[in-house]
Amino acid sequence: MKRYTAWTTGDIHGIGPEIILKAFQNPGRSVRRPLAIGSAEALGFYNSKLGLDVGMAVYDSFEEFRKTPPPPTVLPVLGVAEPSSTLRPGAVSEEAGRIAMQAVEEAGRLCLDGSVRAMVTGPIHKEAIARAGYANTGHTDFLAELCGGIEPTMFFHDARSRLAVALATIHVPLGRVPDLVRSLDLDKLLSGLADSLRADFGIPEPRIAVLGLNPHASDGGVMGVEEEEIISPSVRALAGRERVEGPFPADGFFGAGLYRDYDAVLAMYHDQGLLPFKVLAFETGVNVTLGLPVVRTSPDHGTGFDIAGLGCASPASFSEAAILAETIADNRERTSKFKR
Amino acid sequence: MKRYTAWTTGDIHGIGPEIILKAFQNPGRSVRRPLAIGSAEALGFYNSKLGLDVGMAVYDSFEEFRKTPPPPTVLPVLGVAEPSSTLRPGAVSEEAGRIAMQAVEEAGRLCLDGSVRAMVTGPIHKEAIARAGYANTGHTDFLAELCGGIEPTMFFHDARSRLAVALATIHVPLGRVPDLVRSLDLDKLLSGLADSLRADFGIPEPRIAVLGLNPHASDGGVMGVEEEEIISPSVRALAGRERVEGPFPADGFFGAGLYRDYDAVLAMYHDQGLLPFKVLAFETGVNVTLGLPVVRTSPDHGTGFDIAGLGCASPASFSEAAILAETIADNRERTSKFKR
Repeated sequence: MKRYTAWTTGDIHGIGPEIILKAFQNPGRSVRRPLAIGSAEALGFYNSKLGLDVGMAVYDSFEEFRKTPPPPTVLPVLGVAEPSSTLRPGAVSEEAGRIAMQAVEEAGRLCLDGSVRAMVTGPIHKEAIARAGYANTGHTDFLAELCGGIEPTMFFHDARSRLAVALATIHVPLGRVPDLVRSLDLDKLLSGLADSLRADFGIPEPRIAVLGLNPHASDGGVMGVEEEEIISPSVRALAGRERVEGPFPADGFFGAGLYRDYDAVLAMYHDQGLLPFKVLAFETGVNVTLGLPVVRTSPDHGTGFDIAGLGCASPASFSEAAILAETIADNRERTSKFKR
Repeated sequence: MKRYTAWTTGDIHGIGPEIILKAFQNPGRSVRRPLAIGSAEALGFYNSKLGLDVGMAVYDSFEEFRKTPPPPTVLPVLGVAEPSSTLRPGAVSEEAGRIAMQAVEEAGRLCLDGSVRAMVTGPIHKEAIARAGYANTGHTDFLAELCGGIEPTMFFHDARSRLAVALATIHVPLGRVPDLVRSLDLDKLLSGLADSLRADFGIPEPRIAVLGLNPHASDGGVMGVEEEEIISPSVRALAGRERVEGPFPADGFFGAGLYRDYDAVLAMYHDQGLLPFKVLAFETGVNVTLGLPVVRTSPDHGTGFDIAGLGCASPASFSEAAILAETIADNRERTSKFKR
């Protein structure tokens, strides 16, 4: 049996189920063999509410699905957790948070044991996840733990603008960023990023740009010391082995379009990477978790609670995420680098 | 005598003199009556080196200039500080830093006593200014002190994309931002911003969006507390008097293009405002210092040491800055709000 890719439904009060259905309905150059994982009831709810008319086959276990997969025009759905009451599109709910994470956990397990080749995750809501009692409120940290404590890298990729951004720190209060940057193993992070660009993206000699932490990359130490004490030494140390340059002043780097000269940009914190990314990669950006044995991508947008259930959510980013998941899985199989 | 606008030469080892000459040469809809202030020698050096052939009339004092202004086709230059040796385009130098700030000081004084109506400043280099022994290495802080300790707001405006961004904190190490945000008088800052939008930009009822400090504006407190403790209360307190909304998650706000619905966006720190601004306002963005009795604008780029003296610097942003300075001066004269 040709292996499938898991698509998790995300927060069932958000746009996740809707964009999964739409992405399956209009596969374009994207979908090969998705297996939706999460709440079958939520998929049915939005399918009917929005008149999408997607054929679905619901399974209680992966074994059952493996034995009798549906024809390619029907979406297979592995129901792993269902809501106890009527769906409330747009609501932050503990139960929706729990269901979202149960789907991620199941998809991660199926990736790890080789049952599926990759996973594409629907958007989740951090507050809902926190209410459900999870310590890790993001996919990246959760999957890292599931994979045995590997430290992954959060990465954003846009095929259209050819922009790729990796984050050195992720979902933490801004005030904690400088200390975290100091405690990072930047050499390891950059080497790992270069390895992923080779293995997952098939770029033999990747070029990486590193951004400064402070405004103007501190202007020679006038505003902050992290560039001189942490970032520059790491870049210099790696420069003999990898094509790494920086630290660059972040605003000027993007303003002048310098990102076009690099295969990836390492940003020091969330908004430093995602502000330019979301402006440049509007609608087609994809979030990728690098460095895990599991291939995982997701759309780069949130749960869209404000438009949940209205039928106007665009599946563009989810479809791009599905394409990229297949591409990475193909590249890994080709290089055998991460093959189990 | 119709009042002139001061154009300071900036760091003479950077592209400042070149873009002043080019902006004067191709005024388009921009220049009315500029008076270049700074190093006459530097202007002459680049004028000759780059074959620009701009006619200049050099004066030693404003009085002398006032008595015998040149014809409109000749650029008047007030020489206030000259280099002791040959210019070195691209070099960080203490002397260039000192000359840059002497020009700013003279222009500021001429604004304050009403001799000129506004000032447009060429780019300076913070490291050079620091080497010259100045405590304030930016125009904004320097002018604030010159104007008697008023706290101005750093503001960026792009006429083409209609994006305007104000910064709550400016040239400080990233790690200091959360404490500074806590110590800010956000109510005063936002009221002042609204006042400036009315008086300087002629917008009767300005709409202002406020960004969160932390990633995802903290997602309901999951990553940081400043949104709940500082920003939201200020926005709520002002909402009765001004059209202020937020705090918004910064990346999603710009990614979804929400800035188009507002006359200005308040960012909490330098790169949060300038990353999206420089991507969206490439080449035509203008830096404005709001809240001072002096009208001051500047291009939104740096000294361009890497291209200084090569002749390829674009005067687009400087020309836009000159246009905006005239517009603000006109609006102020019309509303008389800041009239001396």
